[in-house]
Amino acid sequence: MLRKIVLTGAAGFIGSRLRGPLSAMAEELVSTDITEAPAETNGNETWVTADLAEMDQIAPLMDGVEMVVHLGARVDEAPFPELLGPNYVGAYNIWESAYQAGARRIVYASSIHAVGMCDTNAGIGVDEPHRPDTFYGLAKCFAEDLGRMYWEKRGLESVHLRILSCTEEPQNLRALTTWLSPRDCVHLVERAILTPTVGFTVAYGVSANDRAPVLNDKVPFLGYRPQDNAEDWAKALMAKTPRVDAQNLGYSKLGGPFAVVDLGESGVEGIRKMTENEG
Amino acid sequence: MLRKIVLTGAAGFIGSRLRGPLSAMAEELVSTDITEAPAETNGNETWVTADLAEMDQIAPLMDGVEMVVHLGARVDEAPFPELLGPNYVGAYNIWESAYQAGARRIVYASSIHAVGMCDTNAGIGVDEPHRPDTFYGLAKCFAEDLGRMYWEKRGLESVHLRILSCTEEPQNLRALTTWLSPRDCVHLVERAILTPTVGFTVAYGVSANDRAPVLNDKVPFLGYRPQDNAEDWAKALMAKTPRVDAQNLGYSKLGGPFAVVDLGESGVEGIRKMTENEG
Amino acid sequence: MLRKIVLTGAAGFIGSRLRGPLSAMAEELVSTDITEAPAETNGNETWVTADLAEMDQIAPLMDGVEMVVHLGARVDEAPFPELLGPNYVGAYNIWESAYQAGARRIVYASSIHAVGMCDTNAGIGVDEPHRPDTFYGLAKCFAEDLGRMYWEKRGLESVHLRILSCTEEPQNLRALTTWLSPRDCVHLVERAILTPTVGFTVAYGVSANDRAPVLNDKVPFLGYRPQDNAEDWAKALMAKTPRVDAQNLGYSKLGGPFAVVDLGESGVEGIRKMTENEG
Amino acid sequence: MLRKIVLTGAAGFIGSRLRGPLSAMAEELVSTDITEAPAETNGNETWVTADLAEMDQIAPLMDGVEMVVHLGARVDEAPFPELLGPNYVGAYNIWESAYQAGARRIVYASSIHAVGMCDTNAGIGVDEPHRPDTFYGLAKCFAEDLGRMYWEKRGLESVHLRILSCTEEPQNLRALTTWLSPRDCVHLVERAILTPTVGFTVAYGVSANDRAPVLNDKVPFLGYRPQDNAEDWAKALMAKTPRVDAQNLGYSKLGGPFAVVDLGESGVEGIRKMTENEG
Amino acid sequence: MLRKIVLTGAAGFIGSRLRGPLSAMAEELVSTDITEAPAETNGNETWVTADLAEMDQIAPLMDGVEMVVHLGARVDEAPFPELLGPNYVGAYNIWESAYQAGARRIVYASSIHAVGMCDTNAGIGVDEPHRPDTFYGLAKCFAEDLGRMYWEKRGLESVHLRILSCTEEPQNLRALTTWLSPRDCVHLVERAILTPTVGFTVAYGVSANDRAPVLNDKVPFLGYRPQDNAEDWAKALMAKTPRVDAQNLGYSKLGGPFAVVDLGESGVEGIRKMTENEG
Amino acid sequence: MLRKIVLTGAAGFIGSRLRGPLSAMAEELVSTDITEAPAETNGNETWVTADLAEMDQIAPLMDGVEMVVHLGARVDEAPFPELLGPNYVGAYNIWESAYQAGARRIVYASSIHAVGMCDTNAGIGVDEPHRPDTFYGLAKCFAEDLGRMYWEKRGLESVHLRILSCTEEPQNLRALTTWLSPRDCVHLVERAILTPTVGFTVAYGVSANDRAPVLNDKVPFLGYRPQDNAEDWAKALMAKTPRVDAQNLGYSKLGGPFAVVDLGESGVEGIRKMTENEG
Repeated sequence: MLRKIVLTGAAGFIGSRLRGPLSAMAEELVSTDITEAPAETNGNETWVTADLAEMDQIAPLMDGVEMVVHLGARVDEAPFPELLGPNYVGAYNIWESAYQAGARRIVYASSIHAVGMCDTNAGIGVDEPHRPDTFYGLAKCFAEDLGRMYWEKRGLESVHLRILSCTEEPQNLRALTTWLSPRDCVHLVERAILTPTVGFTVAYGVSANDRAPVLNDKVPFLGYRPQDNAEDWAKALMAKTPRVDAQNLGYSKLGGPFAVVDLGESGVEGIRKMTENEG
Repeated sequence: MLRKIVLTGAAGFIGSRLRGPLSAMAEELVSTDITEAPAETNGNETWVTADLAEMDQIAPLMDGVEMVVHLGARVDEAPFPELLGPNYVGAYNIWESAYQAGARRIVYASSIHAVGMCDTNAGIGVDEPHRPDTFYGLAKCFAEDLGRMYWEKRGLESVHLRILSCTEEPQNLRALTTWLSPRDCVHLVERAILTPTVGFTVAYGVSANDRAPVLNDKVPFLGYRPQDNAEDWAKALMAKTPRVDAQNLGYSKLGGPFAVVDLGESGVEGIRKMTENEG
Repeated sequence: MLRKIVLTGAAGFIGSRLRGPLSAMAEELVSTDITEAPAETNGNETWVTADLAEMDQIAPLMDGVEMVVHLGARVDEAPFPELLGPNYVGAYNIWESAYQAGARRIVYASSIHAVGMCDTNAGIGVDEPHRPDTFYGLAKCFAEDLGRMYWEKRGLESVHLRILSCTEEPQNLRALTTWLSPRDCVHLVERAILTPTVGFTVAYGVSANDRAPVLNDKVPFLGYRPQDNAEDWAKALMAKTPRVDAQNLGYSKLGGPFAVVDLGESGVEGIRKMTENEG
Repeated sequence: MLRKIVLTGAAGFIGSRLRGPLSAMAEELVSTDITEAPAETNGNETWVTADLAEMDQIAPLMDGVEMVVHLGARVDEAPFPELLGPNYVGAYNIWESAYQAGARRIVYASSIHAVGMCDTNAGIGVDEPHRPDTFYGLAKCFAEDLGRMYWEKRGLESVHLRILSCTEEPQNLRALTTWLSPRDCVHLVERAILTPTVGFTVAYGVSANDRAPVLNDKVPFLGYRPQDNAEDWAKALMAKTPRVDAQNLGYSKLGGPFAVVDLGESGVEGIRKMTENEG
Repeated sequence: MLRKIVLTGAAGFIGSRLRGPLSAMAEELVSTDITEAPAETNGNETWVTADLAEMDQIAPLMDGVEMVVHLGARVDEAPFPELLGPNYVGAYNIWESAYQAGARRIVYASSIHAVGMCDTNAGIGVDEPHRPDTFYGLAKCFAEDLGRMYWEKRGLESVHLRILSCTEEPQNLRALTTWLSPRDCVHLVERAILTPTVGFTVAYGVSANDRAPVLNDKVPFLGYRPQDNAEDWAKALMAKTPRVDAQNLGYSKLGGPFAVVDLGESGVEGIRKMTENEG
Repeated sequence: MLRKIVLTGAAGFIGSRLRGPLSAMAEELVSTDITEAPAETNGNETWVTADLAEMDQIAPLMDGVEMVVHLGARVDEAPFPELLGPNYVGAYNIWESAYQAGARRIVYASSIHAVGMCDTNAGIGVDEPHRPDTFYGLAKCFAEDLGRMYWEKRGLESVHLRILSCTEEPQNLRALTTWLSPRDCVHLVERAILTPTVGFTVAYGVSANDRAPVLNDKVPFLGYRPQDNAEDWAKALMAKTPRVDAQNLGYSKLGGPFAVVDLGESGVEGIRKMTENEG
């Protein structure tokens, strides 16, 4: 039983699914997001509305913290100045305030977009050099380097989970490779928290899909054992997109639509462009 | 549903098992081999007797083709001049005519003999440099380099399946490691066809044998999930060959008997030599 | 059926569990240890009390030997002069006498302590350079290099099984990652014996634990398929050690307590020190 | 002859030495820094006082630019909020405005502190993963990833020169390994500008010191041929610091004093700490 | 003093410069090319006009041969059927007939075009996988794999010299990186002949250019020490091509113009296209 | 100026050449060997006759030691029991007694025979895994692993100099590649002593021979700059051995004659065998 966990991005798709499990793992859970408190909270859970970009809103949450699960960020590509506060300064604020408060470890929601310009047929592992596809992905690179530095200089551990596509069900042909089920996501976060020592670790967040394109090749010690497989949706998803051009970056690069959009342009645009280019 | 598939080597052991599945994946299947048409063909299947070494026999097959499954070749070691036409020029004819016809992709039956001089205890992956064991294996190296070039220069995709030992059942001690069941072979070809983008890809064709000696380490995106395991025959096969000399290239090199024979000499000779050397 | 197996360290935890299976694999089994013969032996089994450090006690055992399973050693850290005889000279005596007698292969109980100073979160494979944590581990490095040399100079094969933690059940939090069940251990030794050719091979001896920290990445040809998983004991083991300091070498280095003790100091000391440092 | 070069950090130690050479390489040179214009400028040189952190001060400089030499930054470790403007946002402002203006390439003064936590005895090359030692070094990592992304997404080239210690003469024992003479620095920048194509490139800025600790192993195409060698000062420098403790991070890590200071603390402190620890 | 050398391609640019030095290294030199004998030959030199594609013209030259220097080939990109005879079958004829005659070694003029699709800023070494840019380059890949096979199967040694641009003087901006002076070329061939054992070796043929883009990183034992440096022509060559587009494959790929032309199209076309695209 | 250096093997070829330079680097030099004191010693030099295998003879030398230069060993292949004392136990005695006395560093004469079974045409670097060719080489592997362990467990630094062939002049064809001049050897030892921090380091001891077969690729920080080149003797040495069989291990393996002899057999035998096999 941990003493206190701080969860950021608690109102998001993943965050809202983690509140229950995390409240069961610690004596105290502090959940935070930019939004107002939800209707109901768990018994040992406190909700704090806070802006990640503001240190004076973040630092007070950390008093007595043992573990931080940091999911909070703007979750889409946008012009750099719009991401600077929540995604860049926010990461710094979390690491610095957690360190000052004596936290043991930060579990961070990194993203495949930190290496989104890598080829889908390269079978990359966790040691692949950064190749971000967007300012969004670049913020993940920044936080990974930041986390490594806090470990090497100050002994604050971190696990950087490069999440691929976390949705209820796989929603398109790309997700047949990239899907992370909510159940597997919760399991992965739990393992990142409970592993005795982690130092600085990077791992991919993807379910046990037949076609998962990345390799958790150097992190067997986490014991991540996903149970879901997007292949169960294969027939339907392949029928929707029967044919893809070999040059379509939305499929030939790990970043998918983020590899297609121009920098600063929303990923929704990218999905539209991928569709236009399909046959 | 694909438009048109061309299948070469359609009369061979693998080819004859692919005609059915491929005819179900495309509107039109053109099957070709050096031999006459079989007694029965599938409804959307056309049989053309053709010599791979003759461009004017091959090019006409490609009209409107979307996908080529190229298995055709002389399948044994032989003097180089005898392999030159079917295995070398034949590969060129297929790639060039497929490109000229606007094909999207070629799925090619490469072979373990492209790396047959590698050690069985090295655990090699798909990136291992070429180490052919015979003129037969050298032709596979040639076609792999050819395929990479057509992809990088002209955007024609290819998947090179380095098949180990495809037979109904594993037939000797070596096959305990190298067996590829017909069922797994068909599955692998289907995955090579249906994966959205592949660029230039090399993968091993081997079943889920306990002792499979090679690693499909960089091709998780193909989603190849074999189901058969030569270990089911282990007791019988090990009884036949209870003891092997440590220096026996037929077991210490991936190429097996092909690593034993002299260049240009039939692999059947190699099997005989392996047997003589066993205890 | 092998002709003759020599088993050293036959009275130890692993050795005593191998006597039965090995006697079933060969016409003759010679079991040896520094201790007196056990009350019962198998029908084709001869027990010889012998000191590994004495060539004139070891060499006579090898007459007609085909396979050696060499487990004998002092199994704990100790001052170098105390390990010199059994662990260093003993290994030489085994290799030299086995070679002189014409043996085909030696299966050796190496240890994780040959690479015990590697990080648990590095996901190392079998090719990792030596990083011993103790004089005990250094002896394993010595025997691995010795085995490679006998293979390359004299053609005597060897398989070096780097065993992690072989006990009836996993006994502490570290064992959740390092446990090797006796059943899996026997299976691994059998595979090391029966694989047709092995040359010089290193493999890890660890069960199919969710959190097994090392990778048998280059030895698929052995066909080692463990069946047990320390995760079945996870809840109880994690409850005993709820919290570990990030700098605790007993968890952040593969060698565990051996990474904690000073050179020459018993590993039992290391376990005590690990416990003191836990929360 | 280039059309127009923009030089940032033009008032600094390196910048002031580049103004002459760069003005000779282009029709027009725009030099900028946070400080007022110097007393004299070159004939084709315009000086603009500007704050890197302010896009509306930077963007106007880029009109018609072909090449940017971006040296501007706060050059010491400091708390992250103090570096955020000049070193992080400043890099973004340069890349974005240069891209919008149609520039061909950015030559960037990166730093050894991007990999400052690497060991001095590791002999690292240009592909080493980021291991920043300070927020200062982290900003260099950020700009390297940013530059790679602008190349891969938008075709804007960049050369990232990881400068070690650029001073008139080597000033301490560490500089015996890390010194970059002003002459070699100018030569390196010229090569970075004149090489026909560079894509995304990282190179080390160090003179031809006997003991240069890093390897420009993948960038032979730049043709960087330094002429100076800190060894000429060896005797005097070694006399000043005759003996170093093996654990002194100021010598065992590439970052030197930056590896010693706490995050956010000035590197001058680090030099003091190194000295205290010497013998 | 060698017994007998056979030199093919003896009438070419390199071949004609090797006739003298080779005649001084052996008791007998047989020079061959498709063309008629030159006006003058060396005292121990015999000229034979022969077609590489015809085994019955090649095999008779090999009687008593100790060393073959095989330069003969059609030296430009062309449609595959036109290269098949001289470049592919020709290589086989040389290796097979040399082996049958008991030759010790073949020194082969391979080419940068075997890896021509690699990036100029990648700093590749001799172990880089094949990435041919043309059918011409593909023939070099074929001969390298062939040579490796003859070594591993039959013990016939070979050195594959991947020549970049051998001309009297460097002739364009690309040659500033790729030039091989005739003097250095002769020296390299001599070293390839005189090194005691070579097994199968690949090395780059490039002068000591400041900007030589490839690394002879694994072949120090050859002792190749080039003396010439294209940098002596730098000013003039850079003036001719002041500005190159970052996407110009003629500069960003090692193959230069061969990376620009379509397969089967003459490299002269490529040079024209490179020029058009320059600024 | 160091306080005290202990030099072992002081009567040997290298040791006797180091006594002068080392006496100039320290206030006190203790020279030791199994032999009696030489006629003359340096002013600050004490000679002690001692047996490396006897801890009670070695430990007393270490009182107040700062640096150990450990060359002492039996320098030839011999049966393992004969090398056990001086080469194995001797290394342990040195490390343990130096550690107990508070030494900073050990500079050790390792040998190419630690990797003697590697191919001469592989271009190996300092990270190559051990592949000893003899019991002599195996002792060097043992000491390298021992040194790494003392560094990682106890913070005692060491530099392991893998010396190739140290003689006055290169004496045979192999030495054209492997020669280390006495002058370069002294320089290398000095650099190993004076480099501020070294941790655990391996480097090759070979002169600036054109054909030096190994790469000091990861140790630029040592600043080793050899000045001599065996190529000056090339003509004479090549004339002595004009022709070598491609399979001759004496030339195709780094260990030379040690790769030829059987284990335990003197290297002088190996030289004889190499000669017989030459042409």
